[in-house]
Amino acid sequence: MAKTLSELTNLISGKLIGDDQTAISSVTTIEIPQSGAITFANDEKNLAKLQGTDIAAVLVPESITEFEKPLIQVANPKLAWAHLLWAFHPAREFDQTISENAFVHPSATIGSNVTLEPFSVVRENAKVGDGSVIRSGSIIDKNVTVGSNTIIHPRVTVYQDCQIGSNVILHSGVVVGADGFGYVFDGQRQFKVPQVGNVIIEDHVEIGANSTIDRATAGSTVIHAGVKIDNLVQIAHNCELGSHTVVCAQVGISGSCSVGQYSTLAGQVGFGDHCEVGNQVIVGAQAGLPTGKKVPDGSILLGSPARPMADMKKQFGAQLRSAETLKVVRDLAKRVEELEKKLDKQEV
Amino acid sequence: MAKTLSELTNLISGKLIGDDQTAISSVTTIEIPQSGAITFANDEKNLAKLQGTDIAAVLVPESITEFEKPLIQVANPKLAWAHLLWAFHPAREFDQTISENAFVHPSATIGSNVTLEPFSVVRENAKVGDGSVIRSGSIIDKNVTVGSNTIIHPRVTVYQDCQIGSNVILHSGVVVGADGFGYVFDGQRQFKVPQVGNVIIEDHVEIGANSTIDRATAGSTVIHAGVKIDNLVQIAHNCELGSHTVVCAQVGISGSCSVGQYSTLAGQVGFGDHCEVGNQVIVGAQAGLPTGKKVPDGSILLGSPARPMADMKKQFGAQLRSAETLKVVRDLAKRVEELEKKLDKQEV
Amino acid sequence: MAKTLSELTNLISGKLIGDDQTAISSVTTIEIPQSGAITFANDEKNLAKLQGTDIAAVLVPESITEFEKPLIQVANPKLAWAHLLWAFHPAREFDQTISENAFVHPSATIGSNVTLEPFSVVRENAKVGDGSVIRSGSIIDKNVTVGSNTIIHPRVTVYQDCQIGSNVILHSGVVVGADGFGYVFDGQRQFKVPQVGNVIIEDHVEIGANSTIDRATAGSTVIHAGVKIDNLVQIAHNCELGSHTVVCAQVGISGSCSVGQYSTLAGQVGFGDHCEVGNQVIVGAQAGLPTGKKVPDGSILLGSPARPMADMKKQFGAQLRSAETLKVVRDLAKRVEELEKKLDKQEV
Repeated sequence: MAKTLSELTNLISGKLIGDDQTAISSVTTIEIPQSGAITFANDEKNLAKLQGTDIAAVLVPESITEFEKPLIQVANPKLAWAHLLWAFHPAREFDQTISENAFVHPSATIGSNVTLEPFSVVRENAKVGDGSVIRSGSIIDKNVTVGSNTIIHPRVTVYQDCQIGSNVILHSGVVVGADGFGYVFDGQRQFKVPQVGNVIIEDHVEIGANSTIDRATAGSTVIHAGVKIDNLVQIAHNCELGSHTVVCAQVGISGSCSVGQYSTLAGQVGFGDHCEVGNQVIVGAQAGLPTGKKVPDGSILLGSPARPMADMKKQFGAQLRSAETLKVVRDLAKRVEELEKKLDKQEV
Repeated sequence: MAKTLSELTNLISGKLIGDDQTAISSVTTIEIPQSGAITFANDEKNLAKLQGTDIAAVLVPESITEFEKPLIQVANPKLAWAHLLWAFHPAREFDQTISENAFVHPSATIGSNVTLEPFSVVRENAKVGDGSVIRSGSIIDKNVTVGSNTIIHPRVTVYQDCQIGSNVILHSGVVVGADGFGYVFDGQRQFKVPQVGNVIIEDHVEIGANSTIDRATAGSTVIHAGVKIDNLVQIAHNCELGSHTVVCAQVGISGSCSVGQYSTLAGQVGFGDHCEVGNQVIVGAQAGLPTGKKVPDGSILLGSPARPMADMKKQFGAQLRSAETLKVVRDLAKRVEELEKKLDKQEV
Repeated sequence: MAKTLSELTNLISGKLIGDDQTAISSVTTIEIPQSGAITFANDEKNLAKLQGTDIAAVLVPESITEFEKPLIQVANPKLAWAHLLWAFHPAREFDQTISENAFVHPSATIGSNVTLEPFSVVRENAKVGDGSVIRSGSIIDKNVTVGSNTIIHPRVTVYQDCQIGSNVILHSGVVVGADGFGYVFDGQRQFKVPQVGNVIIEDHVEIGANSTIDRATAGSTVIHAGVKIDNLVQIAHNCELGSHTVVCAQVGISGSCSVGQYSTLAGQVGFGDHCEVGNQVIVGAQAGLPTGKKVPDGSILLGSPARPMADMKKQFGAQLRSAETLKVVRDLAKRVEELEKKLDKQEV
């Protein structure tokens, strides 16, 4: 499996400084600088951590030209490193067979080179595109379409009528298309609103383990192309997430919210319903957006209730000092009273 | 599938203003006012959003009497709308057969018209009532009882000895009756406390995808009739949720808490253990109740640690200004010092 | 099933005060003091709650010597109580058979006395140790090793190459080894970083329902011996949790964090990435640790952003009064202005 630095340099269109016949046997992270391995360093400070280690070579930006080990200069070292990881660890190959232990309804349409593992289920009128994989325990409900080269890991549920694109990855435990949380109070009990819409997941989306994307009340909940969602995330009915947006673990988005493209929601963020968040927005960890909040393109928000970062940092700073400030205020109150008394006396 | 306004008006006991032969082909939301569809508007402001659209008719409160399209006046327009949604989208019918790919223990009792989908499991001495549905990948463990007309969606686990009522809906990935989180530290390690109680879920409860309800240490964790729980919610051992209470996504309730009837817990709320929350209480999103908190009937709480809404709104307002306040205080401190110096000088 | 107090006293090496032939038929909690049952009271205050009830006997610390019912004195009453619960409720026995409805790859190695329930899956080169249980719907992926006497409850996924120790309990819906959440932005889209590491779960770990432990990007995510994790917890790629640490429900730990031994993370705590938390640390509910936070051994933290408990309690106290403080400051500002005017007049 070892490759020469020459081969690797070609693969990522880099510029090699050092012996091009150096053998590389693995790709690693900076924390594990094992012998024979290549990793990346984005700057001199990180590169210094590799001094005196067994690392065999390092991917660096073009600004770095010298080191005790061979270097490959590239525009984006971390991206080049990810490409090398793929070169050493090609994507898992599935067996492209329909297990005799799978349940496939006669009305379902199964493409070529599809893998259906044991105890997977494909129901009435569902379609699974070429090269896609439905792993054990996953349920593709009736009228669902799955594009091509999509991987549905073990124990995923896609409820009826939902659409999953191509090159999508759904991790184990994901639930797509469960009923949105909609009721009308009739004076005595919560009356269920039928959830008659669906979920549309576009191409190149990846969704982490045990995340849930609810179907729309009417219309569609839409996850646009290239969105990446981490584990244990909740996306409610009728939400729309713009292309290439990133949603970290345990985020919860209430009903009818929209988020633009290239935005980032950090861990445990919560949205009230009907929020409208623009493009290239960043929302910090554990921040909370109240119902109906509108967030312009390019904003960075922190805190709960969330505010623009600069304001919130000042607020956090002031809150840090709030016990101390309270003391100062009490002291000032006494001194002002003192002053008032003195002046009163003068006037008398 | 089209129905006349006359039919629909009868169905919901409303009062029609306009042509009773108008054909209605679908029920929609105000955001998607498609041709041939009916929706609802709770007030003039929302009704105005439908001006000039293709909407065919609108459900309105009795106070609204005029519009460019036919109106049906009703006491509760949203409730009437939900009823019309059911009329156009009847509940899914399952095939009422026991799949040959289901596993049913010989000692289990299966009612009439039950659906057991492929790869569902019903174990020793479990009972599934008439008309109930156990979808693929769901496990009904030994001694569990499931009432009638209950729908257990794909990949639900109900651990041994738990009781599920009638007309219950459990969404995909729900886990009922896993062990409560109980250990005793013995000086070196956490010694597991056996969790020998169960979970009781009463009639008309609905639980969202991937939520977890732990069994009691001893006795029962109880979810009373009509409770609605959203996705990714955690209810710990020995909790009790009162009838018709609503629990939004990602709420976490620690052990031995009780919540009364008709209360609402918004998204990502957290409770420490042994909290006692009354009836008709509202807890705002991301609020946190400390261990042992007692909350009277009718309270509205916000924030973490949670406080009554009015107080917390003032606190949030003051916190918003806290950086500015800090500046004012520092400025006052200087000015007071100045004043003190001046007065000292006078006295000398 | 009834046992005499004499037998029970021997079992836990306690000292009996009262009739050693008293029959005990069950073990209960202090909230349910039923007839014939034994429970524990850690102090006089709790013991008083049992006065006049039907309780048959009580486990107490050595400092308590008198009560209306028989007592067993022990060093740790709650621990003794947990031992008695096990005596009355032995661990569930599984049938130690390989279901004909299980899927076992011919290259897998299955130990003796293993239970494989219907619709469980054990794939290529996986190993399941003696006495372990793989319940229905669980997937043990290729090259996974499971130690001995481990219980994998229904619907658990262990992705390829992960290692599960002995005497481990994984509750329903747990996902071990899904891909870490790693991408590099290439200017247009998020490029996936292959996640080529694994997860190692050591002996005596218990993980709650629907929790997720991601595989490492390279190397291993490690859960050390005796760690206890509650429901709906997220542990990201390359984290390391020290032995006997306790992680409560809905905690989220970002990538490359470490936590020491015997620490406790309360419910809904969130960590940014690369946090380093020491031994015997306690982090309070809903607290948030910012990226890279270092926490010394023995710390107690509260709040978001988290601070040492003593400081944070003062901060919470000051925040509680912040609306009132704001009023005081505004009043002081007016009074200082008044004073300044008066002095100005004097000077003129």
